[in-house]
Amino acid sequence: MSTEFVIETAGKQARAGRLITPHGEIETPVFMPVGTGATVKAVPQDILEDLGVQILLGNTYHLYLRPGVETVRNLGGLHGFMAWPRAILTDSGGFQVFSLNELRRVTEDGVTFRSHLDGSSHFFTPESAMAAQIGLGADIIMAFDECTEYPADPARTRTSMELTLRWAERTKKYFEQHKTEVPWRDNANVGTAAPGCPVERSSMGFDGGTAVGGEKSGLRPEGQPWAAVSTLSEKNQSLFGIVQGGMDLALRKESAERTIEIGFPGYAIGGLSVGEPRERTREVVEATLQYLPTDKPRYLMGVGTPEEIVEYASLGIDMMDCVLPTRAARHGLLFTSEGKISIKQARYTNDAGPLDPNCGCRVCRRYSRAYLRHLYASNEVLAQVLNTLHNLSFYLDTMRRVRHSIRLGEESRFLSGLWSQPKP
Amino acid sequence: MSTEFVIETAGKQARAGRLITPHGEIETPVFMPVGTGATVKAVPQDILEDLGVQILLGNTYHLYLRPGVETVRNLGGLHGFMAWPRAILTDSGGFQVFSLNELRRVTEDGVTFRSHLDGSSHFFTPESAMAAQIGLGADIIMAFDECTEYPADPARTRTSMELTLRWAERTKKYFEQHKTEVPWRDNANVGTAAPGCPVERSSMGFDGGTAVGGEKSGLRPEGQPWAAVSTLSEKNQSLFGIVQGGMDLALRKESAERTIEIGFPGYAIGGLSVGEPRERTREVVEATLQYLPTDKPRYLMGVGTPEEIVEYASLGIDMMDCVLPTRAARHGLLFTSEGKISIKQARYTNDAGPLDPNCGCRVCRRYSRAYLRHLYASNEVLAQVLNTLHNLSFYLDTMRRVRHSIRLGEESRFLSGLWSQPKP
Repeated sequence: MSTEFVIETAGKQARAGRLITPHGEIETPVFMPVGTGATVKAVPQDILEDLGVQILLGNTYHLYLRPGVETVRNLGGLHGFMAWPRAILTDSGGFQVFSLNELRRVTEDGVTFRSHLDGSSHFFTPESAMAAQIGLGADIIMAFDECTEYPADPARTRTSMELTLRWAERTKKYFEQHKTEVPWRDNANVGTAAPGCPVERSSMGFDGGTAVGGEKSGLRPEGQPWAAVSTLSEKNQSLFGIVQGGMDLALRKESAERTIEIGFPGYAIGGLSVGEPRERTREVVEATLQYLPTDKPRYLMGVGTPEEIVEYASLGIDMMDCVLPTRAARHGLLFTSEGKISIKQARYTNDAGPLDPNCGCRVCRRYSRAYLRHLYASNEVLAQVLNTLHNLSFYLDTMRRVRHSIRLGEESRFLSGLWSQPKP
Repeated sequence: MSTEFVIETAGKQARAGRLITPHGEIETPVFMPVGTGATVKAVPQDILEDLGVQILLGNTYHLYLRPGVETVRNLGGLHGFMAWPRAILTDSGGFQVFSLNELRRVTEDGVTFRSHLDGSSHFFTPESAMAAQIGLGADIIMAFDECTEYPADPARTRTSMELTLRWAERTKKYFEQHKTEVPWRDNANVGTAAPGCPVERSSMGFDGGTAVGGEKSGLRPEGQPWAAVSTLSEKNQSLFGIVQGGMDLALRKESAERTIEIGFPGYAIGGLSVGEPRERTREVVEATLQYLPTDKPRYLMGVGTPEEIVEYASLGIDMMDCVLPTRAARHGLLFTSEGKISIKQARYTNDAGPLDPNCGCRVCRRYSRAYLRHLYASNEVLAQVLNTLHNLSFYLDTMRRVRHSIRLGEESRFLSGLWSQPKP
């Protein structure tokens, strides 16, 4: 096995556990920050480590275009390229291509699309998208799927779902034939930032031998080394399947069952957050979860607000990702225990208080709202750094508390207690 | 005394010492990073502390316009506003107003200028500029001067110098009458980030009592507390005078002598780096230094390249500031022990090596040139963060080595050895 999933506490629906990958262990349920272009925008990697980020997400579409898969592969894959020793997940590129709207054309074989950067034409097939993800070398990679648009009629939804299932088979076949080509497999320097650098200059916490963990990286508390990691029988990537089926619950069931039949070590629920009402999202998630194996990680893609990540964790989702905390931060929208704050507002001009009095992050411990407001109003780069840092901290803290509640058997209560957002 | 200056090692020209301010001790010669709008662009304050920044510079003109002096004063002055517990210096606003060119008009009373932000009209006098600097509350503040343009004929240079001298007298008079109005004087919360915050939330290393140092802030090695600071007999700002006189060595002598006659605890050499050839700068600096008292700190404003800061330290300059390391970083121009690097160049696309193999900063320890090139080419915010961090680290390391050389009595050698820049 290339990943191992251990459920440690299971409530009626929610569960808390550990997902063990070739680049470290992830406590679930987990929120995965998005690092589109091999960077979680504005935040240095050592600060991400300090925040307790255990896994982050890269976007295959963006990385394929810039800097290109070969460049990343030459630097040892994404871990080496971006000097990130912990786990990484890449998406399939399907959702990003789907977002291009006018710029793409789908056939049985794959998708033709135009780069948003320079208009150049490209073609992704299940096989080529998989080759890209193998070259990028994330720990968890995703099957190439078609994200069905919303709304879509029943016939269109079925056609799209069937295409995703055929692509899933092709994806898996290609992966099984090529999975040994991952840049860090059997590589003693797994995760080393710059293969050309002497090992002793690395600050990444790898010992340069066979270990794949990172005791020095600050993730594991003292006395709890990465022992579990070495139990992995294979040091490969793990390919997860994606369930589609639009908003049709019967098709979701069918998609789930047939994806499971193909067989993956983890399953994602895709095709949501595409414009449908939030109640509909919840309904589809809840229905789909029934058909997913309980012993495999379950990943809800592209979700959500702080309320939503708490809600979906309580339903039994193990992994989530969303650009919201990082993107909102860059627009001065900050999540706090007392609700959302738009830091650009003049009311904060002389506000000496911390951004969130209940937050212990390095932004809230040090800076006043007045200062954060000034940075944002002055268009200072530091505004993006500090705002992103706080929002990520808030999301990660929220998930930490969710995990704690699940472990205490209190998951039925955390929906009401963990995230209360008074009207400003 | 509000500052105390101790020369510990004096060579023929260069000297190494300590400048003790109400917000901590500064080892000289020192390079002061520029934090124009109450932020050293792109770098969080805790990272500046880690880099060993002992004093930074704020620009009165910019801070007066945004967020405004009253806002900064309300937050406890710049130290409180920007959550920076160590020393700060503000310029007089004179040089910034001078840079506005078309937008200003100088009279005996002061300068009328238009804001570069919104075109609004403002009037700075020596008194109002001083009031602004008292409200901002830096440890070291500068007399309001006229920076003589280059080139200027002898008559114009004398007229300008005489105006600066009259303004220096008015500045000093106003300062003596109003110096007790500094926001942190006799304030138990000196330097506390946000006066509204409970003391125990502060990460700033102040104990909330009478201490003005910062043992916890990481500046002082363990076991070396800020004892020296408490020897200051007064906890006020220090007003430094500025020598003008253009490129005329006789006028520089006269300006120095008459400024010293007015009497200040430190002296700056202004009116350089205004377009003159570099040899001329050096000539004026060397000549002016002869007339400045050896027992007071000597500050060369707005200088310079890594070579220049080494050179001027060797001549006996104690303090320097320049936007070069931070501004160049934002344009992808990086200083290394092997020369300047323009990280945008395609030659670095697959370069797995560190930016500077001889640099121990957190950028060089962790990231490859290929990654830094990717961030810059992708216009990622992290490029600005990491590039600035490295360039500042390079400047601060350079000055650290200069101080070390002076202490070893090797200042005659460091000009050739410390900074060698091969042609790329």
